Amino acid sequence: MSGNGVRKTAILLMHCPDQSGIVAAVTDFITVNKGNIIYLDQHVDHVEGVFFMRIEWELCEFIVPDDKIEEYFHTLYAQKYKMYFRLYFNDYKPKMALFVSKMSHCLFDILARYTAGEWNVEIPLIISNHSDLESVAERFGIDYHIFPVTKDTKDEQEAKELNLLREREIDFIVLARYMQVISENFLKHYPNKVINIHHSFLPAFIGAKPYHAAYERGVKLIGATGHYVTTDLDAGPIIEQDIVRISHKDTIENLVHKGQDLEKIVLSRSIEKHIERKILTYKNKTVIFS
Amino acid sequence: MSGNGVRKTAILLMHCPDQSGIVAAVTDFITVNKGNIIYLDQHVDHVEGVFFMRIEWELCEFIVPDDKIEEYFHTLYAQKYKMYFRLYFNDYKPKMALFVSKMSHCLFDILARYTAGEWNVEIPLIISNHSDLESVAERFGIDYHIFPVTKDTKDEQEAKELNLLREREIDFIVLARYMQVISENFLKHYPNKVINIHHSFLPAFIGAKPYHAAYERGVKLIGATGHYVTTDLDAGPIIEQDIVRISHKDTIENLVHKGQDLEKIVLSRSIEKHIERKILTYKNKTVIFS
Amino acid sequence: MSGNGVRKTAILLMHCPDQSGIVAAVTDFITVNKGNIIYLDQHVDHVEGVFFMRIEWELCEFIVPDDKIEEYFHTLYAQKYKMYFRLYFNDYKPKMALFVSKMSHCLFDILARYTAGEWNVEIPLIISNHSDLESVAERFGIDYHIFPVTKDTKDEQEAKELNLLREREIDFIVLARYMQVISENFLKHYPNKVINIHHSFLPAFIGAKPYHAAYERGVKLIGATGHYVTTDLDAGPIIEQDIVRISHKDTIENLVHKGQDLEKIVLSRSIEKHIERKILTYKNKTVIFS
Amino acid sequence: MSGNGVRKTAILLMHCPDQSGIVAAVTDFITVNKGNIIYLDQHVDHVEGVFFMRIEWELCEFIVPDDKIEEYFHTLYAQKYKMYFRLYFNDYKPKMALFVSKMSHCLFDILARYTAGEWNVEIPLIISNHSDLESVAERFGIDYHIFPVTKDTKDEQEAKELNLLREREIDFIVLARYMQVISENFLKHYPNKVINIHHSFLPAFIGAKPYHAAYERGVKLIGATGHYVTTDLDAGPIIEQDIVRISHKDTIENLVHKGQDLEKIVLSRSIEKHIERKILTYKNKTVIFS
Repeated sequence: MSGNGVRKTAILLMHCPDQSGIVAAVTDFITVNKGNIIYLDQHVDHVEGVFFMRIEWELCEFIVPDDKIEEYFHTLYAQKYKMYFRLYFNDYKPKMALFVSKMSHCLFDILARYTAGEWNVEIPLIISNHSDLESVAERFGIDYHIFPVTKDTKDEQEAKELNLLREREIDFIVLARYMQVISENFLKHYPNKVINIHHSFLPAFIGAKPYHAAYERGVKLIGATGHYVTTDLDAGPIIEQDIVRISHKDTIENLVHKGQDLEKIVLSRSIEKHIERKILTYKNKTVIFS
Repeated sequence: MSGNGVRKTAILLMHCPDQSGIVAAVTDFITVNKGNIIYLDQHVDHVEGVFFMRIEWELCEFIVPDDKIEEYFHTLYAQKYKMYFRLYFNDYKPKMALFVSKMSHCLFDILARYTAGEWNVEIPLIISNHSDLESVAERFGIDYHIFPVTKDTKDEQEAKELNLLREREIDFIVLARYMQVISENFLKHYPNKVINIHHSFLPAFIGAKPYHAAYERGVKLIGATGHYVTTDLDAGPIIEQDIVRISHKDTIENLVHKGQDLEKIVLSRSIEKHIERKILTYKNKTVIFS
Repeated sequence: MSGNGVRKTAILLMHCPDQSGIVAAVTDFITVNKGNIIYLDQHVDHVEGVFFMRIEWELCEFIVPDDKIEEYFHTLYAQKYKMYFRLYFNDYKPKMALFVSKMSHCLFDILARYTAGEWNVEIPLIISNHSDLESVAERFGIDYHIFPVTKDTKDEQEAKELNLLREREIDFIVLARYMQVISENFLKHYPNKVINIHHSFLPAFIGAKPYHAAYERGVKLIGATGHYVTTDLDAGPIIEQDIVRISHKDTIENLVHKGQDLEKIVLSRSIEKHIERKILTYKNKTVIFS
Repeated sequence: MSGNGVRKTAILLMHCPDQSGIVAAVTDFITVNKGNIIYLDQHVDHVEGVFFMRIEWELCEFIVPDDKIEEYFHTLYAQKYKMYFRLYFNDYKPKMALFVSKMSHCLFDILARYTAGEWNVEIPLIISNHSDLESVAERFGIDYHIFPVTKDTKDEQEAKELNLLREREIDFIVLARYMQVISENFLKHYPNKVINIHHSFLPAFIGAKPYHAAYERGVKLIGATGHYVTTDLDAGPIIEQDIVRISHKDTIENLVHKGQDLEKIVLSRSIEKHIERKILTYKNKTVIFS
């Protein structure tokens, strides 16, 4: 929800071994150098002994030049505290590629938000293994590239996709009900940068046909899970989950229908958190700043 | 929520192969014989081809005597339509036994409702494998029987428990965080009459320590599931489920704490549906009438 | 969610003074005449003494001709039981007009479902008091008519709108964040046929700027309400409501943003219930069949 | 959820006009003096220009003596930044008085948690205008004082209650479905220290009989609200709210019944936040730290 007319800010996401004095040190660095802190949230995982922080400050009077902040911060703090950190600026619009197959509900939801200017993001292209949603892409004036995938052509097609993503300088990928498993090799190029929506309340009903499995088990709630894709199927870090109540009256068709509303909302919330730089991943879990 | 001063009713729960004319036949039987229908809900499972119905009617002017209704219904309809049915009267107070171990939250919630007269039920006794909650039972004036269970004594102790349950004419059993697996033999005596609360959103995190597993997985919601106990661990027919939102800030201790509120509410809702005769089980699923 | 290839059915919605024998009579009428009942749900409002029912049956072997069912039912039952009833056929696609102003989120959500064929409905036209969303209508190939409304031109413009709606044989209207009050005269033409989405949990925050009011009051949840429009502002029969959790961290802008997801889902659920003929209104309330 | 065996901490809650450098200054004060920060959360209300913070640190090596922290902090920071602050220690058990009337569900829920040691709180006494719940208090071994209130005796009775509360050194009061309005004079002695549960989703259905009003309006959700009591009826700062779904099938009796589960959970969550020193009030709103 960053927009026009807002002041330029820097956003720092970091984690490091927990120790006293970090908050004071980092906030002091910013304040002393005339940065105006507008957001600070931190979290300590006492089990792992890890400190996490997200801090955002206005740059208008900050005396360190934008292109030197990373270097200075690295030299003065990151080394000392053994920090892993990433620095972002709010005036950069990240580039998101969409992967789709045949179902349109998530795609429409994302493109509607995009058209309305809800998110600080660019969508340069859509990739699909099918032609079904080409007309949707056309309506919104977005390039649509078809890469049919079979067992034999998978490596080759993924290589082409990666080329295209590189050419268009894509920052992260959203699988909007894309019905193909992404290879380990592909994921190496986008670590914790591929967001998927799984149509169940993970870890229940991993794999294909979760609504059928939910129907068979007779559950009273169905869910959806937005997560980063890792090589372990449906087991990547969870970003967001939600559920909806069902009953014995619901057929599998009803579950699919009710689930679609969940899927699109949960996926869009996950994307938004990613765009807003509010997610830190650590081991196989996420810290989601508010 | 049946109470005093209400008129006597009969409640019929039934299922049979789906075919046309059942609703008309059954409602006609009741209406023609001067029963006043105050509740009717039905459900057709088109996949299995099974018809389910719950119907309740006032008996004040019903011309079939109470103790003949079952026989008449069996002869005139159940045989013809191959029905499985059960008949209840609202003036009978079912007898519920509670099984507990060391945690008090579900027990207190149940006894508070009992004391307030929320449910049409008797609680003649509490059984436990520990003495921890004896003082709670005493406060509410309910018999507390301790049957310590070890691997070697399990059969013997369950036999004693069954004797006691038979003596006290117990109709159904609630495991209010009872930390013992019930044997197959025991369950034969109470088929679909033992209600358990599992502290996860089943089928996620089956078995022991679900909050630890939820923490490890990094889920964003935790759940609780009320279900009938079958010989297949945590896999019996689900009665009720609910969830609560958590975040990366929650420790395992927090999950346990937040989960306890869920557990007690979900368990009490499950018990209430059972007492109100609103549950039909079929295969491994439930039909929950509203 | 009715679709192609399904068998033709009749749907009867009715209410009448409660009395015994109605279910038996109506189901008997259908069964005896070889209709196959596939849905029956009923409700008795014991306070008002009113009986409500929705019943749906397959017509393939029904011996009463489709165009005679209404007459027969009126003659044989409706008169006798003082019923108010409406009869629908599932092979008729109702015609829905959308009214919009400047915000696109509800419009996109509806058109995405329409394009995906989720609903048994036609959308012949969109009416607006502004030109902002014309390009959205164009993308989906739907006629867009602009009727700018001022205090002075309101009567005249509404007359033109009514003409257009009549010409296009519109059955019901959806106000998808249309920022104009509809006049009493207009509503006479579409009684309980104009669905609105109000961006609060009614009856809290009636009127304009509910998110501002929610922010001022410091509530911890915000809501949305789908309802039929009556002459009493925001006080018509409620169809559907839902909420989302907020916190002190949420600005008014955040509330608006979070609320939009609620609004579109709640509005679409309300529309779906209307299309599926699952709503009965009585006095100022709704009976929503499942 | 503070408990035994935990290390002694200080908790500082503060707000002041927003300005840069506060976080750095306060965290520096603690760190430099060898306090180990284990919790920090802050919030800026950009509309009001107010900065809020909750910070907690371990005292074992803190070089400022416990009984001097308040003075030092006042002198060194509070004056400079125009702060309003309060300091608490986790080894003090606050004293809570319960006010009840005739309904037991909230009382039981609180006493069950108390007995199980869920909260860091003492409950020295229960006050009521009726004798109905005396037996409940006895079961839990808590003093029960009856102060019947009529229009004429209200002032006098409140004076007696205040005396008793003072004698027993009560820190805060919980109205657990206490059906009397508290006077302005009484509230002066406990500003933002009287927690009430209102049985509706405020600001909908202010005042008496909210379930009746909800039934009349035909809402699809009912709610409960935990809030601090102010002189403006049901308009004090909201701490927590939640809702439960209802339908046309629910009678007023059902709403009351479903609402009771909500009330007790929402009230207990509100109390817990208060005990954990996680609430800051500002104007008529709350900041609830996580």
